Amino acid sequence: HPNPTQQLDFKRFSSEALKEYLRAERDVLREITPDVPVTTNFMVMGGTKGMNYPDWADEIDFVSNDHYVHPGPQDRDELSFSANLTSGIAGGRPWFLMEHSTSAVNWQPVNVAKRPGDLARDSLLHVAHGADAVCYFQWRQSAAGAEKYHSAMVPHAGEDSDLFRAVVALGDTLKTLAPVAGSERETAPVGIVFDWESWWASEQDSHPTSLLDYRQEALDWYSALLALGVRADVVTTRTDLDRYRVLITPVLHVVPADLAKELTRYAENGGHLVTTYFSGIVDENDHIWLGGYPGALRDLLGIRIEEFGPLLAGDTVELDDSTTGSLWTDRITVTDPETDVLAAYRTGAHAGRPAVTRRPTGSGSAAYVSTRLGAEGLTALLPRLLAPAGVESELPGDARGLVETAVRRGPDSRFLFLVNRTDGTVPVTGLAGEVLVGQADADGALVLHPRGVAVLRQPTA
Amino acid sequence: HPNPTQQLDFKRFSSEALKEYLRAERDVLREITPDVPVTTNFMVMGGTKGMNYPDWADEIDFVSNDHYVHPGPQDRDELSFSANLTSGIAGGRPWFLMEHSTSAVNWQPVNVAKRPGDLARDSLLHVAHGADAVCYFQWRQSAAGAEKYHSAMVPHAGEDSDLFRAVVALGDTLKTLAPVAGSERETAPVGIVFDWESWWASEQDSHPTSLLDYRQEALDWYSALLALGVRADVVTTRTDLDRYRVLITPVLHVVPADLAKELTRYAENGGHLVTTYFSGIVDENDHIWLGGYPGALRDLLGIRIEEFGPLLAGDTVELDDSTTGSLWTDRITVTDPETDVLAAYRTGAHAGRPAVTRRPTGSGSAAYVSTRLGAEGLTALLPRLLAPAGVESELPGDARGLVETAVRRGPDSRFLFLVNRTDGTVPVTGLAGEVLVGQADADGALVLHPRGVAVLRQPTA
Amino acid sequence: HPNPTQQLDFKRFSSEALKEYLRAERDVLREITPDVPVTTNFMVMGGTKGMNYPDWADEIDFVSNDHYVHPGPQDRDELSFSANLTSGIAGGRPWFLMEHSTSAVNWQPVNVAKRPGDLARDSLLHVAHGADAVCYFQWRQSAAGAEKYHSAMVPHAGEDSDLFRAVVALGDTLKTLAPVAGSERETAPVGIVFDWESWWASEQDSHPTSLLDYRQEALDWYSALLALGVRADVVTTRTDLDRYRVLITPVLHVVPADLAKELTRYAENGGHLVTTYFSGIVDENDHIWLGGYPGALRDLLGIRIEEFGPLLAGDTVELDDSTTGSLWTDRITVTDPETDVLAAYRTGAHAGRPAVTRRPTGSGSAAYVSTRLGAEGLTALLPRLLAPAGVESELPGDARGLVETAVRRGPDSRFLFLVNRTDGTVPVTGLAGEVLVGQADADGALVLHPRGVAVLRQPTA
Repeated sequence: HPNPTQQLDFKRFSSEALKEYLRAERDVLREITPDVPVTTNFMVMGGTKGMNYPDWADEIDFVSNDHYVHPGPQDRDELSFSANLTSGIAGGRPWFLMEHSTSAVNWQPVNVAKRPGDLARDSLLHVAHGADAVCYFQWRQSAAGAEKYHSAMVPHAGEDSDLFRAVVALGDTLKTLAPVAGSERETAPVGIVFDWESWWASEQDSHPTSLLDYRQEALDWYSALLALGVRADVVTTRTDLDRYRVLITPVLHVVPADLAKELTRYAENGGHLVTTYFSGIVDENDHIWLGGYPGALRDLLGIRIEEFGPLLAGDTVELDDSTTGSLWTDRITVTDPETDVLAAYRTGAHAGRPAVTRRPTGSGSAAYVSTRLGAEGLTALLPRLLAPAGVESELPGDARGLVETAVRRGPDSRFLFLVNRTDGTVPVTGLAGEVLVGQADADGALVLHPRGVAVLRQPTA
Repeated sequence: HPNPTQQLDFKRFSSEALKEYLRAERDVLREITPDVPVTTNFMVMGGTKGMNYPDWADEIDFVSNDHYVHPGPQDRDELSFSANLTSGIAGGRPWFLMEHSTSAVNWQPVNVAKRPGDLARDSLLHVAHGADAVCYFQWRQSAAGAEKYHSAMVPHAGEDSDLFRAVVALGDTLKTLAPVAGSERETAPVGIVFDWESWWASEQDSHPTSLLDYRQEALDWYSALLALGVRADVVTTRTDLDRYRVLITPVLHVVPADLAKELTRYAENGGHLVTTYFSGIVDENDHIWLGGYPGALRDLLGIRIEEFGPLLAGDTVELDDSTTGSLWTDRITVTDPETDVLAAYRTGAHAGRPAVTRRPTGSGSAAYVSTRLGAEGLTALLPRLLAPAGVESELPGDARGLVETAVRRGPDSRFLFLVNRTDGTVPVTGLAGEVLVGQADADGALVLHPRGVAVLRQPTA
Repeated sequence: HPNPTQQLDFKRFSSEALKEYLRAERDVLREITPDVPVTTNFMVMGGTKGMNYPDWADEIDFVSNDHYVHPGPQDRDELSFSANLTSGIAGGRPWFLMEHSTSAVNWQPVNVAKRPGDLARDSLLHVAHGADAVCYFQWRQSAAGAEKYHSAMVPHAGEDSDLFRAVVALGDTLKTLAPVAGSERETAPVGIVFDWESWWASEQDSHPTSLLDYRQEALDWYSALLALGVRADVVTTRTDLDRYRVLITPVLHVVPADLAKELTRYAENGGHLVTTYFSGIVDENDHIWLGGYPGALRDLLGIRIEEFGPLLAGDTVELDDSTTGSLWTDRITVTDPETDVLAAYRTGAHAGRPAVTRRPTGSGSAAYVSTRLGAEGLTALLPRLLAPAGVESELPGDARGLVETAVRRGPDSRFLFLVNRTDGTVPVTGLAGEVLVGQADADGALVLHPRGVAVLRQPTA
């Protein structure tokens, strides 16, 4: 088995070497076309993890990203998550959606077509999270070659097609949204930390389990917040974390001493930190923080773990709050009498022991979730984690879970995006503002068609 | 991704290069043994698709084939299909079964033994479809070496064995069938076109779905015809298609302009064409026929498809005739008011839209099946596709589906083969002719034992 | 396909070449440290089959072995089987457990922790089967490197941990067991032959089935004996087989002429031989014994098989004693009228034919099991196979199946190990002897805690 510290360093080296290549090309362009901004298309999407994009973002004039949908139960949550993370990488400033598809791609095992409304919704979700441009691969669907079955703005069927008409309609919508261009994202009440170092390190080999999926765990927390209608920003460890009332750090595996201090200070100063299994385990050299897990965060969380309890594929444990854990458990001992046990294991090797804990500290708190609850379980648990921070959905109760919200803020306006997550019609009542996109019914409620999008402009100042 | 036109050309080149090698060897043999006919063993069996055998058949004096059973729900249908296709490649003339097994082989993950009756039935099915010789690998089962667990005419147990006795009995049957030797196949009412170019092209990468199985689709149509007791010839695009009252072209993906014209003329002149999803899409260079699918056959079929609707593995859609589709759907618009919708989608993205259509043209028609119905669904659908041509089973009602028929025609006799597809006894009444193989009961009905075969000789004028 | 005789020879050559390397190193050590005994760590564990350890054992001063648990339904049976086989390889003399884990390892897909009691039970099971030492990898769990998540005697959590306390407690137990050191194993009533040559040869390619698992079949017989509470020794073909009242030879595929004679003599002299499918098929050159299977054992067993009947994955057949067979069947003809049919097939291709037979011969018998019954089916069948030898469990009825027994015998004492196979408490009554390890309740019954171990010392004359 290779040396894991060297493996982690090689990942850093590889990202750095590719970044050097980007800088070399950028420098040439800056010299010969100094007035043309430079960007490169990131791939914040699925499992692409070789490039530490937060570390790349400073090298270009603006961020741009490629995104393609992979069919699955959380496919549009993943689209939103990727767009949201791209915004986090861009520091909340506008960015470009550089590549996207109008419908099917050609490189998946089965390339499903988009349904009516998907084209506009998928594109406008990117705009909602900061995209100032929407570009597609490809303009006219090629009649020959390897990409001839990849969708385009003009399909094989030609301009007399529903697909081309949907592209033209989206163009009209984007024209209407011209005032949004240049606006930045408004900080959400909740932040989810997505950390390339922890992604790399937590999925190395010779670990307690090879089934851990760093990005899926982060996505599950994001899906749970969407299900509750609570707006969240996906951010990186370079972000000013104090802006968030609740900070979720799923599988924050790599915690150097400075980060441990920062998170401790965050909680003591009134922030509400939530972290999970396999967090705080190693320093920046992938060396274990000894004395009991989760080493770097042990005192902050007020717990001590003597041994990990990974679960075999297919195995689950029940918690006493009726949620179900998989993948991982911990053998937790509460070390600080102030630490509350929010949920305990009801079954499994640790039955009767804590599963979810929270320790009050200063004017904030630090919570720990020791198993994988999945989007559904986290949706059940989250209200108890958000309550101390007073965080609730900004949506009317009927719309929570059905509608995703995102907010961009310009010099004198706030742009509220409302995206129908469902295949049914959803009315949304009680929201003020000028309807830029979308329509209201006779009672003044915004009516979101299946997979539809509305945008409200709300004056500020 | 490699260039698909070049990939297709490389397949042609490879087949051609191997054929050149065959010709070189043949030419040597013709020079030194001019009186000995030349053949080579084809592998019309399962997924062997590298050699375009219809294109090879002219190079040899007679066709011969290897066939081994792969256990599965359609294993004997596949045996019949391969034998039938070999006959099509041989232009209906007699051929040799060059390699076959008396029982188990040794190269599958599990090598199951044949049941009593399989040995004779499997061999005589080849004879029914034109084989004038039945040869086995191997004579005496080897005591050592890699093939020592491959069955033989004389097994490890020796001559005192059921297996050897079955081989001897088959020899007696073949002697009885001597009058059949040299006879050709009698054209069936239905033809199924099996086209190597479409096989190669439809399964290339970067397609709407990687799950498409060209040969399985053709086999499912064949199984459905067997289930209905309707005799069909498996033919190639080199065959004179006008001989068939109904012509089925499953996934006829590659349709050069000339073939489109030929099929149009076929239908106008009274033929009944049936084709499926992903047919008529590209020309001989794998270039898309633009303007809407199925390009080359769009006008003939009277429909237009703007976008393919492949289904994820495991996904299905219901049709309003109670059949179930998988693998593929199309978003069909009827463009000719004469086109009939024979079945529509009841569920899925295209619910309410046409699933199966037929357009009358001249004195014939052209039908389109836009999803994979499988052998069972096609069995339900086929009667409506065969009706306009007046095609029905030649068998008495009780025997349909239980018995496969094949006919060879000599100078003054017609040889009707009846093969029991089941593991039960099947009586067949009302057939005229001299019983060459098989036996009749007291009432004069032919009695087919489980997996049994009978042959009737019927004098022709 | 490669030549199977050469493949088998290459396996022999490889084992021999590695053994030469061991001898070369040993000779150096004997020269420079003549007073220090030499050993090397064997890997009698799971699928490690490259080294023919019975053939290696004579080269070293004492045998030592590595063992790690693979989670699964038979994981502790496998641990016991491996320890038992190691004892067989060591000729019943004491050996060392050179590598073992206190809890999780780091190289499986998911590395589960041991439960309370596992550490002591797993280690003492090795002692029960002859280990005079228990060593762990690793002393102090490393803070860095590829093995940092492998358990140790001192975990990351430090000395203040349940794991370290369990290690210390085991040390105390081993001190108590000092009188056991040096004692040898007491011959059990049943022997299971594990033969490297048959392991190698039976799993070669181009066989009737690729699903045959030689070691699993042997393990299933072992599990069945554990379920009945009958003590068995796992032995090699180098063992004096006459010591066993019942000798089970699962898949004894390679039977040279001498071995066939030895087994025949064994049965005639009062031994009760039990063998299975695919036994007696080839000689030492992997050449078939012709004339009908199982060639070398055909006359001894009084049966003849014309053809193997391997079953497809997932297929099963029912026997008329309510057991279920998988993997394999045989088409058996009884050739000796004395041969009894103990069970027949009720379903499948051989319905009505014999499935399990036994032929009396001399004062013993020879039985044949033609299908894979699995541990459960063998547990049902075994009493009928053990009855002629009068073999029964030495345990009180209540404890059978719940407790594993093993016996070591010293100069003046017999050490009876009792190992709780279950997760519940098991009382064992009626056993005499001094309690070295374990405790008795008020009524004098030994009380085995979940996964607990007791050791009784019984004086011998």
